[in-house]
Amino acid sequence: MAESQDVLLDKIKEQGDLVRKLKAAKESTEKIQEEVSKLLALKAQLGSEDSAPQKFVLKTPKGTRDYNPQQMTIRNNVLQKIIAVFKKHGAECIDTPVFELKEVLTGKYGEDSKLIYDLKDQGGEILALRYDLTVPLARYLAMSKINNLKRYHIAKVYRRDNPAMTRGRYREFYQCDFDIAGQYDPMVPDVECLKVVTEVLDALDIGKYVLKVNHRRLLDGMFEACGVPVDKFRSTCSTVDKLDKLPWEEVRTEMINEKGISPDAADRIGEYVRLNGGAELANKLLNDEKLSKSKAAVEGLEGIKLLLNYCDILGISDKILFDLSLARGLDYYTGVIYEAVLTQPIKVGNEELTVGSIAGGGRYDNLVGMFDAKNKQVPCVGVSVGVERIFSVLESKLAAGDISVRTNEIDVYVASAQKNFLEERMKICAELWNAGIKTEQSYKKNPKMLNQLQHCEENGIPLAVILGESELKRGLVKIRNITTREEQEVPRANLVEELKTRINALNVKEINGSL
Amino acid sequence: MAESQDVLLDKIKEQGDLVRKLKAAKESTEKIQEEVSKLLALKAQLGSEDSAPQKFVLKTPKGTRDYNPQQMTIRNNVLQKIIAVFKKHGAECIDTPVFELKEVLTGKYGEDSKLIYDLKDQGGEILALRYDLTVPLARYLAMSKINNLKRYHIAKVYRRDNPAMTRGRYREFYQCDFDIAGQYDPMVPDVECLKVVTEVLDALDIGKYVLKVNHRRLLDGMFEACGVPVDKFRSTCSTVDKLDKLPWEEVRTEMINEKGISPDAADRIGEYVRLNGGAELANKLLNDEKLSKSKAAVEGLEGIKLLLNYCDILGISDKILFDLSLARGLDYYTGVIYEAVLTQPIKVGNEELTVGSIAGGGRYDNLVGMFDAKNKQVPCVGVSVGVERIFSVLESKLAAGDISVRTNEIDVYVASAQKNFLEERMKICAELWNAGIKTEQSYKKNPKMLNQLQHCEENGIPLAVILGESELKRGLVKIRNITTREEQEVPRANLVEELKTRINALNVKEINGSL
Repeated sequence: MAESQDVLLDKIKEQGDLVRKLKAAKESTEKIQEEVSKLLALKAQLGSEDSAPQKFVLKTPKGTRDYNPQQMTIRNNVLQKIIAVFKKHGAECIDTPVFELKEVLTGKYGEDSKLIYDLKDQGGEILALRYDLTVPLARYLAMSKINNLKRYHIAKVYRRDNPAMTRGRYREFYQCDFDIAGQYDPMVPDVECLKVVTEVLDALDIGKYVLKVNHRRLLDGMFEACGVPVDKFRSTCSTVDKLDKLPWEEVRTEMINEKGISPDAADRIGEYVRLNGGAELANKLLNDEKLSKSKAAVEGLEGIKLLLNYCDILGISDKILFDLSLARGLDYYTGVIYEAVLTQPIKVGNEELTVGSIAGGGRYDNLVGMFDAKNKQVPCVGVSVGVERIFSVLESKLAAGDISVRTNEIDVYVASAQKNFLEERMKICAELWNAGIKTEQSYKKNPKMLNQLQHCEENGIPLAVILGESELKRGLVKIRNITTREEQEVPRANLVEELKTRINALNVKEINGSL
Repeated sequence: MAESQDVLLDKIKEQGDLVRKLKAAKESTEKIQEEVSKLLALKAQLGSEDSAPQKFVLKTPKGTRDYNPQQMTIRNNVLQKIIAVFKKHGAECIDTPVFELKEVLTGKYGEDSKLIYDLKDQGGEILALRYDLTVPLARYLAMSKINNLKRYHIAKVYRRDNPAMTRGRYREFYQCDFDIAGQYDPMVPDVECLKVVTEVLDALDIGKYVLKVNHRRLLDGMFEACGVPVDKFRSTCSTVDKLDKLPWEEVRTEMINEKGISPDAADRIGEYVRLNGGAELANKLLNDEKLSKSKAAVEGLEGIKLLLNYCDILGISDKILFDLSLARGLDYYTGVIYEAVLTQPIKVGNEELTVGSIAGGGRYDNLVGMFDAKNKQVPCVGVSVGVERIFSVLESKLAAGDISVRTNEIDVYVASAQKNFLEERMKICAELWNAGIKTEQSYKKNPKMLNQLQHCEENGIPLAVILGESELKRGLVKIRNITTREEQEVPRANLVEELKTRINALNVKEINGSL
């Protein structure tokens, strides 16, 4: 505890004793009231009556963080660009509660269920924080009996992981999902999701990428053809999913030692998962001796062929790679799966950041049915954009001085060089606010001119209105351009008009500048 | 469980037995694989392998709700208007985690602490969901050692209350806060908060309102002057706060029976709290025999006088009412307090909704200090807009048919009357998306013309591109205006240009329409 606090507490005790003494002595009300006032003033200094001295380390919970204004500006800019793409494709917006009945989440995430944040049982329902936005969407569709929906949902999700926060991974993080639900023709909504991913990544302009695609039915067929027992398909799939982080040898060892796959089967899988290409690969595999005998594999390959054809029509083929090593971790996918990966490290200051996967998704036709008593299916396909990694890259660029952001939008600062101009400044602020001009002023009665101009420069405010006695007497005020330092006197009566002209000119210039 | 599901499970068991039998009999790999494929197909029908039949009632947690696209459109429109006002005043945006260390929230909310949602102890830190955005702001300021900040924060907060959901009160609800932190001159930031409230309510255009103001120091002084013991100021204040819902007689009874105030003191309080007015009332009370002897009361009254003077200068006096019955529930206020109340019921269909309080706030100079080891103070003043009530009113209006909302922004629907035009439609969609035109099409291969046009009408899509074989052969496509049903043939090569012209014309018209 700080010394000043101790001293204050002593004073309060002393003063309290004094008041009690006066009351006991039945002193005059006036005298008592005077001392009570002093006691109150002391208590006000101390803070709230139940204010205890801070005894714990002040921090946000593990794996979480505050977003300061610069980070929020970056975040809002990124999300705005993404939302614009989602809206261009006709997506509607929904939101769901941050927590769900625990039962809604149970049995949806396999091994990762241990990462779910549970709420304390405080009497009532057993709740848990959402782990993603996909299961809540499925619950929403089942609950509201909606059969068709193209929606986006941008919200925070929660995982009790041990994340590498330096790489933009947190326990509380944003997901940014676009999904199409409904019974439609094969691959038509699926390819639109791929198109959306390319538009988002192009809009964000974060470098070259490849959009890997594969098909769960093909993976199933491939495992079948390689002699993996049916009950080990999902766990083998999870192991294949690690190929983007581990070399094949390690993945092979895990398959054999942990998943109980025979070395022969593992080696056969190894042959397939090194393959990638385009439609010609799909055609080749349709003639593969083993795969062609698996109904699942043929279904998957036919799906991939159709998807690649549609990619061609939409003009995104140059960004697509059919890749048999792509598996995706989650259990619930049933058809096409995809993942966008940046193919170049991103330059940040003098260093290079390797980002890797930046968006992913796939088809999940059975998830809604899990919530329906009659198992009624609503087929879905969707994509989730890894915005946290994008935020993280941009924040690094900001820290390295590669980019700068403006955290407010103020166009005009109302200043005065002289004392006793607060009320005049207020009048002008009110006038400008009422005219819709983004305006601020100092909250001090007599701020220094230097501080006021410094505030404008630090905050990128382009214009200042400067009030002075001599000008006001002549019915004039000065407008100062903060960048050029040019000042011009204009009639007080025309101020709004004059400022609007200058703001419009500035905005046009800014747009010219950034083209 | 549905019967079909049972039948399916039986079939899977049967097929599994068959596969095992074939394997045991060492049948040919081909034969075994064929049967395994069938087994896989059956399992795919069943859904995910761990899919259990739904056994619980499908719902969102008590006191929470999903927002559907219509509700989200309303919500986003309201928030956009509010954010525009906050930005006009130079506010920056921050965000904090949805949960805090439990210790951060402890001792901040008085009796209401029982409403905090705790997270389960899963090993690690003890966490709780945020109860408001004010305490997280104070924690943020103390932690980041920031002395000045004008910020807005719009996010959900959590209270285990038993809310009347029909009146727009939930356990999970949005708060929409604007606060100014920093050591400034008296009432200068405070009056800007009042100005912000008036601008927000005017922008939302939800009817006449009055902005009640009072001062915690005046309340303290008033309690003192009426003979309330110092240690009962806060609890008496909580009781006075109920005056907007209860008649004076009941409040008086609570004071006497529950808070231990003498009947005389209660009656004296009763005399004061019925007073309201403007600057003349403040002057009158400064000459009040009892109040003028209380240092606290005089401080509060001087503050109110200054505030009312500034309100005059900002041109908002006609909306302000100095009201001695305004107390505000929370403990942490230390200076001016205020609350905006709608003075007229809102017409919804044939009924009238009484909304009451719609925004409130005040000065809290000691909250940040509670988080600082050295009790360093950062004075703050702020306002919270009751957006949930506003959402609730607008949703009622929507339900009553008083307003309508469009949940998507699509300008062009690409349709075809003939079969086998999917790929042609896709090509055109890609072209329009690449040109930045908000476009959609049916995800079906051969949708019916009627269904396509119906979709446009239901979703307010203004234009359709209609593809036909005979037109395409001549290098033409049709553009249809959905409202007027006019159709026009344009060259396929000029389509983007032609659509952009029409979209711009529509937008101009829409703006004209709403002015």
